Amino acid sequence: MSLLGRKVWAIAEGYIPAWSHGPAPQMISHEAVCILNPSDQDARVAITVYSENREPAGPYRFMVGARRTRHLRFNNFDDPEKIPPDTPYSSVIRSDVPVIVQHTGLDSRQAENALLSTIAFPGEE
Amino acid sequence: MSLLGRKVWAIAEGYIPAWSHGPAPQMISHEAVCILNPSDQDARVAITVYSENREPAGPYRFMVGARRTRHLRFNNFDDPEKIPPDTPYSSVIRSDVPVIVQHTGLDSRQAENALLSTIAFPGEE
Amino acid sequence: MSLLGRKVWAIAEGYIPAWSHGPAPQMISHEAVCILNPSDQDARVAITVYSENREPAGPYRFMVGARRTRHLRFNNFDDPEKIPPDTPYSSVIRSDVPVIVQHTGLDSRQAENALLSTIAFPGEE
Amino acid sequence: MSLLGRKVWAIAEGYIPAWSHGPAPQMISHEAVCILNPSDQDARVAITVYSENREPAGPYRFMVGARRTRHLRFNNFDDPEKIPPDTPYSSVIRSDVPVIVQHTGLDSRQAENALLSTIAFPGEE
Repeated sequence: MSLLGRKVWAIAEGYIPAWSHGPAPQMISHEAVCILNPSDQDARVAITVYSENREPAGPYRFMVGARRTRHLRFNNFDDPEKIPPDTPYSSVIRSDVPVIVQHTGLDSRQAENALLSTIAFPGEE
Repeated sequence: MSLLGRKVWAIAEGYIPAWSHGPAPQMISHEAVCILNPSDQDARVAITVYSENREPAGPYRFMVGARRTRHLRFNNFDDPEKIPPDTPYSSVIRSDVPVIVQHTGLDSRQAENALLSTIAFPGEE
Repeated sequence: MSLLGRKVWAIAEGYIPAWSHGPAPQMISHEAVCILNPSDQDARVAITVYSENREPAGPYRFMVGARRTRHLRFNNFDDPEKIPPDTPYSSVIRSDVPVIVQHTGLDSRQAENALLSTIAFPGEE
Repeated sequence: MSLLGRKVWAIAEGYIPAWSHGPAPQMISHEAVCILNPSDQDARVAITVYSENREPAGPYRFMVGARRTRHLRFNNFDDPEKIPPDTPYSSVIRSDVPVIVQHTGLDSRQAENALLSTIAFPGEE
């Protein structure tokens, strides 16, 4: 099982829509990173957020338990700082045990929602 | 042909929307796993479902015939147990012959539908 | 340049929506395979279509010129036979020179359209 | 860190919708390429655009600073020439340092928007 996953991943796309339609929290516009840890060890995860015009922010730190998944919304990141809406960003995800990372989003700026989802890019380490 | 595909795949994203708009079964909100078996042997597939707060569920067992495809809706999984809606999950798909796995979804919670689709992450085994 | 691309690709997801809203041809519900041939040789492409309940159909044959792209709609495939709508399928794409394959779709069954797009899965050959 | 990313990427899908609904610039239909440069060196990027019926256009040249991301809209490319709307294209992205590339789009031709996003295909070089 330990061969399934990688310790570093990148998501080049990132954009938190500035407004929403519909009931909270499900229909709030958001982008999320989904992290699966199928291993038998807890994973310590550190996420760095890159911008167009300034040095990277973070690391944002999370724990993903052994045999657990977490779906983390970038909108809710606040330590060490918030990610501004309506602004392009990218992210790099590092973990001390192999995990699987997928990127997902819900855009409800107009009356109906739109979805995106794509696997993150795995590093070779 | 036996070189096309892998025996283990992971989908970090998973979320069954809690409601729908439109005619059944086509427009019911759902998430599905599409499994292609281009080989000349039947594939025995076992799917494990991971949660945020408890031990994994499954395995859910399926057969995908030689030179056949199956599109399985997570909404319909019920043995050994149902997957709850409006709750994040992840999945790992194992097969005894190499297959190709893609993740797809339809969200019709608001009046119009939204789609997602992404290749699953292949393991190295 | 010849190192960019692969000679075999698979798309596990496939589904042609059974109806549409909006002006033709742009807003007709469809699924397409986009094939880029960045090489200096014409590519002869053969696509096999897999079903849930019968033997594979095809091959469907296409030429993609040197340094050209083609976006082929599965809806329009008709030789040797049509692909039925509202029915799951998968596809395997083989080329005699390395190409890059992406899967894309437009679903306009409800009043507004939904899009999907994902890279196909590359074989190891 | 230098192991994260590749120097050549391809996006087989490309299509700029011919019309839009909603406020500019956020809701204008567009396709974009998101490029993350997590390295400590500035990246010189050259993008070639492939068509169905003529020789490739470009290269379009951009700089992505060290530890920076850029989200570039294909709609805005104009040197050496514009990319026509409502016409299929593909793109190849080359960089002198390893980067990560993702493809994203917003289609607001009908009253509500649709999104797509997928990782580009990495070359082996």
